[in-house]
Amino acid sequence: MKNSLLSNINNPTDLRLLHEAQLPQVAQELRNFIIDIVSVKEGHLGASLGVVELTIALHYVFDTPNDLLIWDVGHQAYGHKILTGRRESFHTNRQLGGISGFPKRSESIYDAFGVGHSSTSISAALGMAIASNLKGDYDKQHIAVIGDASIASGMAFEGLNHAGVTDANLLVILNDNAIGIDPSVGALKKYLTAVKEGKNPRQNNMIKSLNFDYSGPFDGHDIFAVIKELKRLKKVKGPKFLHIITTKGKGLQQAEENQVKYHAPGKFDAITGEIHIKSVENLPPKYQDVFGLTVLDLAKKNEKIIGITPAMPSGSSLKFMMDALPKRAFDVGIAEQHAVTLAAGMATQGMVVFCNIYSTFLQRAYDQVIHDVALQNLPVIFCLDRAGLVGEDGATHHGVFDLAYLRCIPNMIIYSPLNEIGLQNILYTAQLGLNNPISIRYPRGRGVITNWQSKNFGKYEKIEIGKAICLQKGSKTAVLSNGTIGNNVTLAIAKIKYPETIAHYDFSFVKPLDERLLHNIFMEFINIITIEDGVIKGGFGSAILEFSCSYNYNSKIKILGIPDEFIEQGTVDELQQYCKIDVKSLEVLFSNY
Amino acid sequence: MKNSLLSNINNPTDLRLLHEAQLPQVAQELRNFIIDIVSVKEGHLGASLGVVELTIALHYVFDTPNDLLIWDVGHQAYGHKILTGRRESFHTNRQLGGISGFPKRSESIYDAFGVGHSSTSISAALGMAIASNLKGDYDKQHIAVIGDASIASGMAFEGLNHAGVTDANLLVILNDNAIGIDPSVGALKKYLTAVKEGKNPRQNNMIKSLNFDYSGPFDGHDIFAVIKELKRLKKVKGPKFLHIITTKGKGLQQAEENQVKYHAPGKFDAITGEIHIKSVENLPPKYQDVFGLTVLDLAKKNEKIIGITPAMPSGSSLKFMMDALPKRAFDVGIAEQHAVTLAAGMATQGMVVFCNIYSTFLQRAYDQVIHDVALQNLPVIFCLDRAGLVGEDGATHHGVFDLAYLRCIPNMIIYSPLNEIGLQNILYTAQLGLNNPISIRYPRGRGVITNWQSKNFGKYEKIEIGKAICLQKGSKTAVLSNGTIGNNVTLAIAKIKYPETIAHYDFSFVKPLDERLLHNIFMEFINIITIEDGVIKGGFGSAILEFSCSYNYNSKIKILGIPDEFIEQGTVDELQQYCKIDVKSLEVLFSNY
Repeated sequence: MKNSLLSNINNPTDLRLLHEAQLPQVAQELRNFIIDIVSVKEGHLGASLGVVELTIALHYVFDTPNDLLIWDVGHQAYGHKILTGRRESFHTNRQLGGISGFPKRSESIYDAFGVGHSSTSISAALGMAIASNLKGDYDKQHIAVIGDASIASGMAFEGLNHAGVTDANLLVILNDNAIGIDPSVGALKKYLTAVKEGKNPRQNNMIKSLNFDYSGPFDGHDIFAVIKELKRLKKVKGPKFLHIITTKGKGLQQAEENQVKYHAPGKFDAITGEIHIKSVENLPPKYQDVFGLTVLDLAKKNEKIIGITPAMPSGSSLKFMMDALPKRAFDVGIAEQHAVTLAAGMATQGMVVFCNIYSTFLQRAYDQVIHDVALQNLPVIFCLDRAGLVGEDGATHHGVFDLAYLRCIPNMIIYSPLNEIGLQNILYTAQLGLNNPISIRYPRGRGVITNWQSKNFGKYEKIEIGKAICLQKGSKTAVLSNGTIGNNVTLAIAKIKYPETIAHYDFSFVKPLDERLLHNIFMEFINIITIEDGVIKGGFGSAILEFSCSYNYNSKIKILGIPDEFIEQGTVDELQQYCKIDVKSLEVLFSNY
Repeated sequence: MKNSLLSNINNPTDLRLLHEAQLPQVAQELRNFIIDIVSVKEGHLGASLGVVELTIALHYVFDTPNDLLIWDVGHQAYGHKILTGRRESFHTNRQLGGISGFPKRSESIYDAFGVGHSSTSISAALGMAIASNLKGDYDKQHIAVIGDASIASGMAFEGLNHAGVTDANLLVILNDNAIGIDPSVGALKKYLTAVKEGKNPRQNNMIKSLNFDYSGPFDGHDIFAVIKELKRLKKVKGPKFLHIITTKGKGLQQAEENQVKYHAPGKFDAITGEIHIKSVENLPPKYQDVFGLTVLDLAKKNEKIIGITPAMPSGSSLKFMMDALPKRAFDVGIAEQHAVTLAAGMATQGMVVFCNIYSTFLQRAYDQVIHDVALQNLPVIFCLDRAGLVGEDGATHHGVFDLAYLRCIPNMIIYSPLNEIGLQNILYTAQLGLNNPISIRYPRGRGVITNWQSKNFGKYEKIEIGKAICLQKGSKTAVLSNGTIGNNVTLAIAKIKYPETIAHYDFSFVKPLDERLLHNIFMEFINIITIEDGVIKGGFGSAILEFSCSYNYNSKIKILGIPDEFIEQGTVDELQQYCKIDVKSLEVLFSNY
């Protein structure tokens, strides 16, 4: 009987009614359930498969939701969601109006803390544990489950460093599978590997140095061993640390063998694991590959070029350069702060550094961008991947604040290419040598030029810094777009009855602005529309308002972009519709001008 | 002969001509020189006194500036500056047009990396070291001198974690004096103390776990021992770590005994060390004390209140609460990221958390503010100390970006009090329970109400969220001010010939804006001036432009604030003049309206 146990578990109380001996069957059913749904609905697979036993054991031993359980990052929390009342809705995972791909407080009382970005769990759980002590609740447990890639991030260290001198009931569980999205890196990973291989004597324990009660390493797939140890730890007061070893993708052979690919494999065969290959023929390239191929090509010719990624070699496609020029391309792990200041240090020595960070994660290194790069005016080249609305990852991952938080930084050039050619050419231009740092932002996913690689790749043209371009002349209204959202404008203009009424300007540079062209536009047009794939407050549109104000223009300006609220998950199209920056909404808007 | 050796050292080459036996005399002269100047010119004293021997030893042994030397934070770099060509200009330290209080690349080739914020040195030095390897320069050394408070910050861990798996010629020198500005905290500090006391066997070494060649601990005031060890380490390839023990304030008894006070003691007697007490009678209170006294007062009545500071108990005056209610007020060390997410975790459990962080340092926790607090709409109360122009600390420390980088975050309330009463009352209002996070920003230094403590302290009034106030009616021009800079506006209006022409509105809330009042203002006035102690790009003035644009108003708006450049050091008055937001500039401006 398929799911004969799982189908009766509507919350952890149901789970706790089972005998321990039944739990391996629950594990099997849970694993199958995850595979069945994710194989058709897509999502993050490997991480959740790896913690099936741990997830069951935690809810079996601890009194959730009274005991507070935090999953770091949250990729691994599918099993948790399914066991805590979301089995029936799990097929809506990551969809508009469905459940979130990450734990989320507003979704369930079992989600003690909303996650998405890494390495927050220790700090959050410690805060909860201190609060419990202050409220006199000395028995409550507070559990942070964190992977070995995430625990190497500085923020996690800060949490451990504080926790170690408290008497908080904090249990940190290190889920050590030697991989994040890509394989883990760094000295701590090396150390943990030595521990696993028995090469480090117990007494030489880094975690013990931080004043934690350390136990492990345990086999995280031995559910009885994990339960036994959790029961023991439940009674231990103060900060404690459990080190378990798991295999990412456990239970699906292909996922175990190709852990990077099966992190989020798309649709696949639930039995064989075979990934359904989508035909990409005649599709435009991913912006990621435009970045990766171009930077490699440039690096072959310019030996000063260095590439840096904080833990996203595959996602950013910096992997192309890492494979071909391993001495000059670095995965520094989940360490955005370090990545930026490392880049700054290299730039002082004349190196040309492409520092690729997802827009949402550059928030982690905001101070380093200001204080270490821009203040010293070092020409670091920031490549902000996944800028704008990212789709199914949702509110934690949209890269919509960057224009606003970067625009206020002196010395910073900001460029959002309109398409693949713009991206390729700005990468080329930047490595020729700029006098300033530059932030190049581009979205997740595919561009608009089907044959870019055969037709355009490698045919570089230098871009004039600060220059905007008239894409289409028009008689009544000027549309000023920033970045790839300009392609929506082009499509929308083509659909309206009187396309000749709309002029379209590509303002790829948010900073410096093309003031000469702006003067012409403001003198010619009464109606001006700005559009950006970023928040309205403080963004590109605001820059245009500031220009207009400075020179006392009276044109009527309409600003399109992301409203002042957190945008949830959905397809990019759906979310653009919500923000009224999709082609259809623009068509309607332009028709009424 | 006073300074008989030092006065002939114009750069490290001169130093290297001396015999080792002469170096203790150089140390004595250097120490006296620092004391003599800082005693009359003010500045950071204790840190530089503590590293006099190390400074001399480093420049004596290494081939600076070819070997690259980075001082973390830079408070301790006065000796370095004096030995590297800035002896004659040292009396201009921290003054407008003078030398910077921190190492700065544009000031000297001996300043390998600009600093000010903590924990950047390892990443920067590693970047330089990797660059040297790529350039084939395998002998060059790259040195990061970092204190025990700074090395506990997450960013430093990220740097160590990366460095440990490289072959970079990186020398990390831990200057362990058990204190930052305030005494160091945390599990790492406890560990280091145990190492110093010989309680940790060598084999249990956390730094060795990270793959570093560890040596120490050495007495950092034994210049011969330090030189000997540096000479040995100079020949060691790859990452290496030297642990030295020093005493902050070394050589001035009072500074050794009162290390917190003598971090930056103001003027003092160079012989006795006695601090010149300034009369503060009839002076308004510091905003810091308004915060500290008020939060303590409120915390006594509201047991849900918690206070958090990342390493600034004295500077923020959270110390008042830490002393009186030690279980509910936390110094978490230099760990802004952790501080914010810890606060978020506490807030999920219903605690009322005042998280006090200097504006410039909140840049370190930007992602946590967005992702852990605002996205979950947790009512954490951020108190942004030293917002706006901070004066002598200069470009690295001005808190001028906060309005711009916070305004784009959904759910965030932003309030800048006009004066002490505004600050006291918003703290009171916030702890009554808000539905949103709030950022309360106030400047360094004294307020404007001489008798605040006797007249106003404890007389709380609830503030209506989002409400702006008309301070003065006027006939021709409306001035909208945010925060304490509004006091300049009041003074300027009082000085002009026709004060009745200028209306003045206090927009303490940048978000939410008082749209009702704004409609009235925009309907009444053609001329509107906004003023803020923050960057113009994306700040308060931009918010007003966005409002005006949304409702198609045609008023002529002038935005005053910090221009789009990094502002150097000087007195706050001087810097306000530079930005044309001082009383005199406003007086001239208002007279012409």
